[in-house]
Amino acid sequence: MEFDIIERFFSPLSLRTRPGALTMADLAIGDDGALITPPPNSQLVVVTDTLVKGVHFPEDTAAYDIGWKALAVNLSDLAAMGATPAFYSLALTLPEQDADWLTDFSQGLADCAQPYQMPLIGGDTTRGPLTISITAQGWVPQGRALMRNGAQLGDDVYVSGLIGEAGLGLELALNRQAKLNGLQQAALDRLNRPVARVGLGVGLRDLANSAIDVSDGLLADLAHILNASKLGAQIETSQLAMSEAVKQWVGANRLKALSAGDDYELCFTASPSKRPLIQALAKEQGVVIHRIGCLVQPPGLVVDGVLLEDALGYQHF
Amino acid sequence: MEFDIIERFFSPLSLRTRPGALTMADLAIGDDGALITPPPNSQLVVVTDTLVKGVHFPEDTAAYDIGWKALAVNLSDLAAMGATPAFYSLALTLPEQDADWLTDFSQGLADCAQPYQMPLIGGDTTRGPLTISITAQGWVPQGRALMRNGAQLGDDVYVSGLIGEAGLGLELALNRQAKLNGLQQAALDRLNRPVARVGLGVGLRDLANSAIDVSDGLLADLAHILNASKLGAQIETSQLAMSEAVKQWVGANRLKALSAGDDYELCFTASPSKRPLIQALAKEQGVVIHRIGCLVQPPGLVVDGVLLEDALGYQHF
Repeated sequence: MEFDIIERFFSPLSLRTRPGALTMADLAIGDDGALITPPPNSQLVVVTDTLVKGVHFPEDTAAYDIGWKALAVNLSDLAAMGATPAFYSLALTLPEQDADWLTDFSQGLADCAQPYQMPLIGGDTTRGPLTISITAQGWVPQGRALMRNGAQLGDDVYVSGLIGEAGLGLELALNRQAKLNGLQQAALDRLNRPVARVGLGVGLRDLANSAIDVSDGLLADLAHILNASKLGAQIETSQLAMSEAVKQWVGANRLKALSAGDDYELCFTASPSKRPLIQALAKEQGVVIHRIGCLVQPPGLVVDGVLLEDALGYQHF
Repeated sequence: MEFDIIERFFSPLSLRTRPGALTMADLAIGDDGALITPPPNSQLVVVTDTLVKGVHFPEDTAAYDIGWKALAVNLSDLAAMGATPAFYSLALTLPEQDADWLTDFSQGLADCAQPYQMPLIGGDTTRGPLTISITAQGWVPQGRALMRNGAQLGDDVYVSGLIGEAGLGLELALNRQAKLNGLQQAALDRLNRPVARVGLGVGLRDLANSAIDVSDGLLADLAHILNASKLGAQIETSQLAMSEAVKQWVGANRLKALSAGDDYELCFTASPSKRPLIQALAKEQGVVIHRIGCLVQPPGLVVDGVLLEDALGYQHF
């Protein structure tokens, strides 16, 4: 990849000094590596997510949306750890140099990063089949990260936002319809431009016992918390929020929404004593959250009174 | 990608506590992200390099070598910053699950990381055309990183090791010969299993004014130092070390060796007053280094008395 591409499209995403940002990169794009001074008494949180064309997004997805989503899915992992986003690296593999595509792609990245003042600190551009891999990093105060294995017996189980939106969005994207109604368009937007629950995750550092982001489907992701914490859960699907479009899509089979990936909401558990504080946090953050069940013994996932087999693979590590 | 793959092939590369390692991952594979406690008074160095099949290595490269090289090229960037390697993340895109391939690939990673006690802390496995992207991280004492822009007028210019080895190795790999002689085999090994100059880079923190790793070819990489430092250089190719096999390969055209990539040696500049200390460091590290020229004004790269046009693209940022 030419120097020109980096200079033109990516260097603007990297500002060496940015007042007000949590972390200032002492040195970013333009050397063998980036140089970062850690804030005092903090731990670094490192997450990596890759998007492959045709696997993680439909072939005809807009370049802007690909850029947005590639960063957003990483922000979602940071949020699930309770981390404050700090900076990111980009490994971009491209079949060809296309200035229009790069303009839109880099704008999608820039717009997604903007609320967090999160600079691009480096990476690699290579030629090949379109693949975007981002390693995003953030900070948590020492010992305060949210983890999957911190859940406690008796915890409430919560999930933010609407569930199944991106699953419906994917179906709409793959089976193009002439005209979408407003709710269908919202589902498609959720697929293409997910908004990570960063503020919620940071606020939950003091309130939740465990958290995960809903990337593989609510059931699969909740199962990770249960496995890590050696607990079971009882979930009531009637407590879940679904849009009218998703309700129509799933019909009587609500598990379809609970198995759909890509929502990038947060699933978390917290002591019942924290209910008022959690509702206040959700209000402050402008995020809708729903209490959908509680943690129990023995291990196992019970949905509407039925024990599910846990044949749910997963993808991230 | 199945949980099974991560558990079987990659979790063993991530040890939560490893006595003697510089950085212990407080939490690694198995959550949304990894958690790292920075050592005091240090800066984080972050580097990213991607290998694409058919672009960065020949199609028939052994899986072990791909794993080794994917990490080694990142270690080389850390070395060029003077960083002590600490941990790495892996974004692996694979066309199919192949247990033999994964066994060899992960062993290549493990063996390359072993001297540095460098754990794999996480990443992402996805399905698609074979692409390996690694973000490696290390630490430098605050303010002590080696940078491209630190070169000073009058500095000596050095390069470690033999130049052109990997370039010859690539030609041998692409035009398979029935039998290679020992020196040709060494060149092929250098292509497939480069050894990053980590110890040299760490030692140069106190001695060199600038450094870069030789990934795009010595001339292109030295040009980056010159551009960043706004200086020129005079280089004598007679001072360069080349194996007999490379000498035969390039014939009278020594620039061919200076333009060949993938050697992963270090090119660095230092004050003439540091010559004895630098020779002592090289001896201690068991690395051969050669003083090949000096930094001058005006800007420009003069090789054997001839000013070169700087039409040398580059790839990393």
